[in-house]
Amino acid sequence: MTDISTIEAARQRIGSKAIRTPLLSSPFLDDIAGRKIFVKAECLQRTGSFKFRGGWSAVSGIEPDARQRGVIAFSSGNHAQGVAFAAALHGVPSVIVMPQDAPKIKIDNTRAFGAEVVLYDRANEDRDAIGARLAQERNLTLIKPYDEPLVIAGQGTVGLEIAEQGAEYGIEAADVLVPCGGGGLTSGIALALEARAPGYTVRPCEPEHFDDVARSLASGKIERNAALSGSICDAIVTPQPGNITFPLMKTRCGSGIAVTEDEALRAMVLAFLRLKVVVEPGGAVALAAALFHSAELGTETVIAVASGGNVDPQIMALALSRFA
Amino acid sequence: MTDISTIEAARQRIGSKAIRTPLLSSPFLDDIAGRKIFVKAECLQRTGSFKFRGGWSAVSGIEPDARQRGVIAFSSGNHAQGVAFAAALHGVPSVIVMPQDAPKIKIDNTRAFGAEVVLYDRANEDRDAIGARLAQERNLTLIKPYDEPLVIAGQGTVGLEIAEQGAEYGIEAADVLVPCGGGGLTSGIALALEARAPGYTVRPCEPEHFDDVARSLASGKIERNAALSGSICDAIVTPQPGNITFPLMKTRCGSGIAVTEDEALRAMVLAFLRLKVVVEPGGAVALAAALFHSAELGTETVIAVASGGNVDPQIMALALSRFA
Repeated sequence: MTDISTIEAARQRIGSKAIRTPLLSSPFLDDIAGRKIFVKAECLQRTGSFKFRGGWSAVSGIEPDARQRGVIAFSSGNHAQGVAFAAALHGVPSVIVMPQDAPKIKIDNTRAFGAEVVLYDRANEDRDAIGARLAQERNLTLIKPYDEPLVIAGQGTVGLEIAEQGAEYGIEAADVLVPCGGGGLTSGIALALEARAPGYTVRPCEPEHFDDVARSLASGKIERNAALSGSICDAIVTPQPGNITFPLMKTRCGSGIAVTEDEALRAMVLAFLRLKVVVEPGGAVALAAALFHSAELGTETVIAVASGGNVDPQIMALALSRFA
Repeated sequence: MTDISTIEAARQRIGSKAIRTPLLSSPFLDDIAGRKIFVKAECLQRTGSFKFRGGWSAVSGIEPDARQRGVIAFSSGNHAQGVAFAAALHGVPSVIVMPQDAPKIKIDNTRAFGAEVVLYDRANEDRDAIGARLAQERNLTLIKPYDEPLVIAGQGTVGLEIAEQGAEYGIEAADVLVPCGGGGLTSGIALALEARAPGYTVRPCEPEHFDDVARSLASGKIERNAALSGSICDAIVTPQPGNITFPLMKTRCGSGIAVTEDEALRAMVLAFLRLKVVVEPGGAVALAAALFHSAELGTETVIAVASGGNVDPQIMALALSRFA
């Protein structure tokens, strides 16, 4: 069960371990959008994405005995780094199961954040079986990336900060645009805003052709993506909304917005030029929606979450050469 | 006269108009430096540099009648944008005097932030004469970039935040590394820390061959730079320390540190990769000192100010291709 009290409890456990990321703005972005845009720069979070909040919430929220034995996660991306660093800062072991063909930099980074990385052969081995065996042998606690109440509660702390920072700017009504994969961040923010800023409406944002959440919200039931790879926004591509996150989103979110890859790249470049933050393509879809999908937005002020900044520098260089 | 009370007054006037920029960190940077590094990410400030604070402090601090008539500044860089935007947000006119061969993007940006840009011919016209004539004709108030108490007070608000944020992390003693041009930011921070965090020592950081402040602190009198151009760190190259700022720095700062251009570029790249912030070369000299000048540092924890992020995207792309 996740509600505002579990999010408040997560914030208590997180304390000053996570960055209170700033709400940034620029008149150049406002001019493009024709409305006032604020960006919640969660790319500045420790480990480079909001996932550190959920990782910390989960590691700190499980029973002390289980925590001492350690945690395990399947991920080659932001969730891996968030869990690994949260575990390391707690002084407990973490095991991250990654495909052996994952980019070396991601494997190296996950190790540097303190995890033991266990590689598997995508073609011949079953990830879930390996994880289940390791979890059992070593008595590790699995931390799922989004369908886990402690994780949702941690991501929801972004929503508490948005409510407070929005109030400092006198914002009473706003579409809050959130990059959405499995829905942990989106549902957590929606829960927090429902309680703390009821004039705000969460709008999930996704890449074109991978808009399972938008379609699921429209139909009222869980819809799948046709493809699972081939997007530059890989960090937020999941097969379908989560079984825990979808019901939370269904009753609390406005309609979803899908953006093109070029819109995401242009938003990355504008965030670089005008806000001085590094955003990854998947983390830029909400800003892209704010900038380029005016007709789909309902409020004079919008708040877009920039959810992560772990972009390959070559992709940033390419985007700058095309759109700067 | 500038002291802690003028800095506190500047903070009152600034209120929530400036971003309270976060203190960022990464275990990757700590590993390189062999000590704990925190980065005060002032590149995230409005207009992309700390100069917005001094601009706001000055525009809001002058007499209301003078403010209504407007302000004038000479600058092709960060000070121009800071003053222009501060004036625009006050609803008062600003005139920025720039050389006609300044990069078009800088002219366009200064106009977009609300200023009237007056161009002059560097070869045949005298900037000071043009400025003096305009100031007299229109009764405008000149805002100098650093030798101006209201500006120093505004930049000093960075120091108030460093003292508070450092205390949140339990930091009792630290070298505070500050990119230094004319000394407005450095002297402002030094004044604030003297009062609010006396265990912290400000260390001015400059590019190699343009280390007038380091040499002036060493000799005890104002020393000039041999050259005034030719540094990639152009934003922080000035002929010599200010007449107001130098006495403030002389009694409050530790010794200066000079870094190479390659060190500044490598610090830019590490800030991009590990902190997800965009820093310009001149704004990266303090982080470069923290990372690569360990032998010159005196404390287990250092705080480096990243003072600005207004870098040409081609320079960032070049730095990434060389050092990422």
